Parts: sequence; structure tokens; C-alpha cells
Amino acid sequence: MAADDPPAKPIGPSIREVPEGDTHERLVCADCGYIAYDNPKVVVGAVCGWDDRILLCRRAIEPRRGYWTIPAGYFEQGETTAQGAAREVEEEAGARIDIEALLAVYSIPRLGQVQVIYAARLIAPDIEPGIETIEARLAAWDDIPWDDLAFPSVRWALHHYREYQSGAPFAARSNPPGELGNL
Amino acid sequence: MAADDPPAKPIGPSIREVPEGDTHERLVCADCGYIAYDNPKVVVGAVCGWDDRILLCRRAIEPRRGYWTIPAGYFEQGETTAQGAAREVEEEAGARIDIEALLAVYSIPRLGQVQVIYAARLIAPDIEPGIETIEARLAAWDDIPWDDLAFPSVRWALHHYREYQSGAPFAARSNPPGELGNL
Repeated sequence: MAADDPPAKPIGPSIREVPEGDTHERLVCADCGYIAYDNPKVVVGAVCGWDDRILLCRRAIEPRRGYWTIPAGYFEQGETTAQGAAREVEEEAGARIDIEALLAVYSIPRLGQVQVIYAARLIAPDIEPGIETIEARLAAWDDIPWDDLAFPSVRWALHHYREYQSGAPFAARSNPPGELGNL
Repeated sequence: MAADDPPAKPIGPSIREVPEGDTHERLVCADCGYIAYDNPKVVVGAVCGWDDRILLCRRAIEPRRGYWTIPAGYFEQGETTAQGAAREVEEEAGARIDIEALLAVYSIPRLGQVQVIYAARLIAPDIEPGIETIEARLAAWDDIPWDDLAFPSVRWALHHYREYQSGAPFAARSNPPGELGNL
């Protein structure tokens, strides 16, 4: 194309090949050499308790805008998963927490997601929705809007937190048998 | 460049900018539109017991070629973390396992790594080193080559497995206090 043509719309790495030293086919870009390794996405979050209530946030963003979730989001470089979970609680609900235990590691193969979820205690019941949150609420177990939860893994985490809170010896959980987190 | 010039050596995404809708500066490629999100790397692995011995592998690849590790490697799309750990044990040690429990989630911020490590039991004591392994061995606790372990997180995992095996109620572990996994 001539030098003064507008740049073509980028279409992403588009050549399918097995990179040198690799064993799987990947999408690569002939220009920048980028290899699309389909890295997993790590989601970090926490079920946060205050007395007998649990912190819930109503999502202001897609996917599942308007539905309820626990504070959670993408892990960023340079932090630990526990630090990332505390950061997400602060960003989404304006709240500060003490991490108590690793609650669960969930895998959502369809999304390439690994979710690392902690059990935590609010340091104070002061909550204030962030820009990704319409409304934040401390909900008693019977007031949880079960029919309006954003994702299956939110339901899993709430039930696993309830088991964690029961006081019996607790081992971190994973996906319920046979469930892969699809809506 | 002219059409018959050899292609330039790819140098990777090289423009630093804040993508639309994002909050952080990222490296992008002007040609393919790839945004280098610095996704974390998820490592999955297992400490695998057989009677009172533990499966160890001597690395045939860099980094830390010649040093000892537990079977572990990069999580691939489409699997759960537990499936990935079992796959790595089979690839690196030719062994099959039953996953028993989530042992630990470690974070190595310098490498952007999240490690999901399981406690597992070998189904049989049949081991055979894969192409990334010089030698695989079932080692009693006192025979573990502590001075020749490949990474700090291998030492953490072995000690956490020992606590797991003690029979006391066990909760999944994370990094030892203050440790970030640097060599």
C-alpha cells in the first residue's frame, strides 16, 4: 500500500503456526512477532464478611451489568493474589479487608480463567461503590439475591464461604463436581 | 521497504500507549493491534507422594537446568488447574496421580507468576522422565537434595506438603511471610 494510505484496521495475529521450540500451533503476527499464547486470565477476589453479612456489589459494567457479584477482577502484574483481591475490594466497594484464608481456586475453561478467591473480613462496615459498581450492600444470607447473581462462580463462592464460616476444618475448594462455570 | 526486502526481524509490540477504555499504559503493535497486557503466567504442579517418598524431577531445560523440582509447568487453555497439574506430572515424570487437595497458591510478582500447587498421590510407583526431565526419583524426606532445588517455591511446596501430611487440619498455604520467590 502507498505510504499515504490510511493504516489498515489491525486484525490481530493472523498466521497459524508452531513457533520454534513449541509443541502447539499458535496465532502469530508476521509484523511484530507476537505469539498469541492464549495465556490464562487470573481473576482475584474475596468473599468479605461483616458480622453475619456478606459484601455484594451490583455490576455497572458488562458482562452481566445489573447483576450481583462478590468484588473480583483481573490480577495485575507486580502484586500477590491476596494483594490483588484486597485491591479489587477497595476499587469496587471502597472497603478495606483482612484476608483470612484461601477460599477456593476455580477454573472456567471456556474463558481460560483461573479464579483465586479469598475469605476476608471487612475492617469496618464502610462501603462506597466504585465506578464499576452501581450499588454495594452488606447482605444477610437470606437476603442474598440468588436469582440475580452475575456468574455461577459467585454462587459457588458464597456457599463455600458458608462452609468455611461453619467452623469445621476447612480445605480450599475448587469447582463443584461437573461444573465448569458456564452461564 | 521494497517488496523483495527480507522481512525485518520482529521486535514485538513497541508503541507505549493507553488503549481505549483502559487505565494503564501498555505496549501495542501498530500492525496487528496486539495489546501486551502483561497477563500473568499460571503455573500448575503437584507434590506427589508414594508411601513416605516424594516425586522429584531433575530439570533438563533452562532455567535451572540440572536442579531438582516438583513436576510443574504452564497451565494451558481448556483445562482446569487440577487437570493441568496431572498433565504436567505425566509429561515430566511419566506418572499418573490422584489429586488429593489444593496445597498452595504462590505468587512470584517478579515473574508475574501465580502457582497453583496440589497435593497428590501416585497411582503406581512407575515413573519415566519426559523430555524436559533428566532424571525422576522417589525421594524420602531425608534424601531430598535441599541444596540443589531449582526454585524457592519448590522448597515451600515440599515443606507445606509435609504439614499437609501430618494429619492436622490443613488449609491451603501461600508464600511464607515476606518471601517473594526470588532466587
